[in-house]
Amino acid sequence: MQLSQFTDFALRTLILTALNGQRRTTIDEVATAYGISKEHVRKVVHQLSKLGLLEATRGRGGGIRLGMPADRILIGDVVRGTETNFAIAECHRHDGTGHCPIDGACRLTGILRGAADAFLSELDRYTLADILANRPALLMRLAPAA
Amino acid sequence: MQLSQFTDFALRTLILTALNGQRRTTIDEVATAYGISKEHVRKVVHQLSKLGLLEATRGRGGGIRLGMPADRILIGDVVRGTETNFAIAECHRHDGTGHCPIDGACRLTGILRGAADAFLSELDRYTLADILANRPALLMRLAPAA
Repeated sequence: MQLSQFTDFALRTLILTALNGQRRTTIDEVATAYGISKEHVRKVVHQLSKLGLLEATRGRGGGIRLGMPADRILIGDVVRGTETNFAIAECHRHDGTGHCPIDGACRLTGILRGAADAFLSELDRYTLADILANRPALLMRLAPAA
Repeated sequence: MQLSQFTDFALRTLILTALNGQRRTTIDEVATAYGISKEHVRKVVHQLSKLGLLEATRGRGGGIRLGMPADRILIGDVVRGTETNFAIAECHRHDGTGHCPIDGACRLTGILRGAADAFLSELDRYTLADILANRPALLMRLAPAA
């Protein structure tokens, strides 16, 4: 049971961007800070911008900033918006690749769905601001040129 | 966010075995009913037996039965016992392959762990017997030779 690397990187991108506040963060900075590829960061930034969680500007002096205050960004919403696969088991696939013969009769489908909802509800108890409360320790690790 | 195929097959194996009651179910039967490989079923049965959830006997007339009453088998416990990877994000890996630089300072680690616990707690509200309550519909789909 794990989240995709995409979601993981999205959460990390939001953390660094939030730490930098009003100063625009570049894709290079995110990639360097976490030791991940620029291509990954670019895709993450594209998706987070579409969700309104980041505001991106191009060109010289461009970069990313939060698209809304950190205390309004629910962790559950980030995961909902970046996790492309919420098919906990085969019966949740709606792409025609699920072949379980008891699909439709099996109560596990709903039970697993309820558990995924509980997972997301728990994440909704926290905002990006809750994570930033640990700002000094995070800055020490990431040392952004803030 | 998904469970492993191993956990999925483990839950299905328990369902068919429970439907067959005291009659021993064979690995062939499970494989045929769900259209999955015998090798997968064999590994699942081995693990479920180790957990005490199945009781397996070898040889002619052998096969599997539940190792305890269905109403004592919590779905959460099945998942805990079969899901090998509970590393929701990189920071939960304890095999040395996690490299996130904010690991140890980041509150997300605990928040994600809490969400996984909420997922499992929700599953603990149900037992295998709750799924069998839909017995006629399940039998119609699986048509075990009971």
